[in-house]
Parts: sequence; structure tokens; C-alpha cells
Amino acid sequence: MKCVSVVGIGPGNELYLSIAAKETLEDSDLIVGYKKYVELVEEYLPEKEYLYTGMTKEVDRCKMALEKASEGNCVSVVCSGDAGVYGMAGLVYELSVDYPDVEIDIVPGISAVLSGSAVLGAPIGHDFAVISLSDLLTPWELIEKRLALAGEGDFCICLYNPSSHKRKDYLKKACEILLKHKKEDTVCGYVRNIGREGEEYHILSLKELKDTEVDMFTTVFIGNANTKVIDNKMVTPRGYKGV
Amino acid sequence: MKCVSVVGIGPGNELYLSIAAKETLEDSDLIVGYKKYVELVEEYLPEKEYLYTGMTKEVDRCKMALEKASEGNCVSVVCSGDAGVYGMAGLVYELSVDYPDVEIDIVPGISAVLSGSAVLGAPIGHDFAVISLSDLLTPWELIEKRLALAGEGDFCICLYNPSSHKRKDYLKKACEILLKHKKEDTVCGYVRNIGREGEEYHILSLKELKDTEVDMFTTVFIGNANTKVIDNKMVTPRGYKGV
Repeated sequence: MKCVSVVGIGPGNELYLSIAAKETLEDSDLIVGYKKYVELVEEYLPEKEYLYTGMTKEVDRCKMALEKASEGNCVSVVCSGDAGVYGMAGLVYELSVDYPDVEIDIVPGISAVLSGSAVLGAPIGHDFAVISLSDLLTPWELIEKRLALAGEGDFCICLYNPSSHKRKDYLKKACEILLKHKKEDTVCGYVRNIGREGEEYHILSLKELKDTEVDMFTTVFIGNANTKVIDNKMVTPRGYKGV
Repeated sequence: MKCVSVVGIGPGNELYLSIAAKETLEDSDLIVGYKKYVELVEEYLPEKEYLYTGMTKEVDRCKMALEKASEGNCVSVVCSGDAGVYGMAGLVYELSVDYPDVEIDIVPGISAVLSGSAVLGAPIGHDFAVISLSDLLTPWELIEKRLALAGEGDFCICLYNPSSHKRKDYLKKACEILLKHKKEDTVCGYVRNIGREGEEYHILSLKELKDTEVDMFTTVFIGNANTKVIDNKMVTPRGYKGV
């Protein structure tokens, strides 16, 4: 069969893989992905055949997967977290128009907004927005606009890609925009190395977050006006009566 | 051990359960939940002990779980989708202050925004907002405000609880608000019975969605300005160059 499955592998640890994702990977002739994610999968499926590329080689990687599929293979493209949330699903569909005989299948996974949320407690217990601070593919002005609107709407907010070598001050900038709409003591949290060795989380105020440096392995959460701290966990109530 | 694990079981089908969630359920002395979700779990874990309550009995249910845990049991509270996204995680933390000896643990799951997205293709391939249209616990004015702001920011939007017996016209109202900011031909989609028998999806324009009636087993997706239809799938490009 000629097929490409885009598979969300969750935060990395085999435990957070869905049973469907595991079966799809096991049934693949070839597993393709960014080197770092391929290495995570190799740990629990060492016997498979793998192909990987480096960062920013997304188009090459997905073309390679479609090419191998059109030769008659079942190929899995692995994505950290979910297949669709800043993942490869969209790109594979876009490129698939040149490979009409290849069947595409998407296997969802636990994205960092969910796995990080579980570590922090219940930070996104109400309406939320997910925004990437990476301006590699999105104009920074649009990111700023979305931050301001999400702040104004008192959404819980989850920030992906909050930092990189070239963007050390982006989280600070984001917090400054949010502080125009949210109070300084808004409960925030961040999680590093979710589901992997060295996992750690911190809970702090939006004011403190503004002056915190995080790395690219970190996911950041900003609460809404009702978010509180309970027993060192970040909790956004849904609003049930009688609590 | 005295513990309550709040477990996201995904859309219902065992295949979309994480390995961690399955192990947690298997290790529980007791599984507590809304009747409908408990029945889904019973299908693949028939040998466990179960306790369930009806809809709107969330506070009773979580108190019951904490009570049973404080008597020395390991209890799982099951949530459809994720444990935290409109799930029971927050409520369990809120109620846990009366049970200081009970340990709380959150096991994430594949929420409908991710499982539905996989069925439709790649609708949330860029920044997105998740909004519930249920006004049982949230004032409708706040929901309207969030819809308008998410529309203005050109977020991809996922709507939970788009309809119920008492709220037949809420999706129409939501679309009318979004149409003030998004074009009539914005690509939208909805999925019914995700991962269960009778799963179906439809792709349509925002104008058409406005006049569509959906039921409470449906999750709705509204694209951003770049969302397109490829081979009957809903695809929001991330913006990679060279495609």
C-alpha cells in the first residue's frame, strides 16, 4: 500500500503515545522525521527503518516521505506532540497534490498544550488560545495582534516556541503585551522537558514571567482572571456551582 | 495509596487512549465518571469496579471520587477527550482542599480539538482558539466577546458544545459574529461521533455553516484566511516556503 501516516508521538515518552499511534508506527515500512524525534521513537521501536533530516528541512522531509510512499511503502512521518498542531499534517497534504496515488492518514497525539497542562495541574480549564512565538513563518506583527486579542478576551493562553537563540526577548515582549489586558498577578506557569528526563515546572505571576528566561524546550501557560494556585498547582476553574 | 487520577480517555475508542491512561485505569481500584464515558471504558476494561453519575452531577461525582480515595483507594475519574480541557481536573483540585491526604494526578488525553482535527485533515495548523458555546457555566456575553476577538485575530477556531436541545441557534449566532471578521467563504468543517461508530465529517463555508444544524456530539472547526480544501480535507498551512 502507498501511504503516509502523519503521527503525533506526544511529548516523547512512550507512555504518552496513543495505542493507534504505536500500531501505526509498528506497521510502517519506514519512519521519517526530524532527527531529535526519530531518536525518541527509536528508543522504543529499535528494529524499524528510519530516515531523518535536520531542523528547517520540513519540506524536504515530507517530500521524501511521499516519494518513498509512492514507491510502494507505508511511511510514517513523526511529529512531536500532535500531527496537526504546528506539525507536519498540513504540509504533507499540501505536497500530496503531486502524489495522487498516495493515501494520507493523520494520527493525533498529545500536544504540549495538553501534556504540559497535566504537569501544571489544570491551567486550561476554560476557553483557551494557542499561539506560537516563532516568527520564522509568521510575521511578528500578527503574533503581537493575536496576543493582544487573546489577552483582551481573557483567554487562558498557551505559548509554543517561547524562545530560541535568536529570540531571547520574545517572551518578555509577549508578556508586556498581555500585561495591557491581564493583571500583574495573573497566575502563569511553564513546563520544561515535558514527559522526558529533567521534567520541571514553575508557577509564577505574569509580572515575574516577563523577566524569566526560558529555553526552546519550554511551554508557557498564562491563566485567565479566575486562575488560582492550589497546592502548588495552576488551576483554572470551569465555574461549577457549589465548590 | 490514597489517590485520584483524572484521566483523559480521548474520543472513546480504546485506540486513542494513551498507554499511560490505559495503565492508570488498569491499576485503579475504582473508576468514576459520567455514565456515558464509563460505558465506553467498560467495553475494553469489563473487569473493573465502576461508579457513575448523570450529567450536571460533576461536583457530586468528584466528591465521591475523593471520598473513596480518602478511604484508601486508588480512584480514576474519567473524562472524555482530555482531563483538563472542559474536563474534571480543575474541579478535582478545587474540591481536594478538603482531602489533604489524597494525591492528585492528571493523565492527559486526546481532546476533540485534536481528534476531530485528524479526521478533517489539518484544520488547526496555525495559532488557534478553543471556545465552548455552552452558557451553562459561562455568561453568553463573554462567549460572544471571545468569538469576536478570535475572529478579529484570524485564529483557527474550534467550537466545543456547539448545540444542545435548549441552544439550537447558538452556532448560528456564533457564525454571525465570526462573519463580521472572517469572509463568507472561510473554510469550515465539523466532525460527528469522532472515533466512534457513525463517525462523519463535512467541509463547508462559514456562510453555509451559519445555516447548518449540528448536534451535541459534534465538534466544529473554523479556518483562518489561508485555510483551503485539498482532496476533500480541510488544511491550514503553517506557511512553509517552497510548497
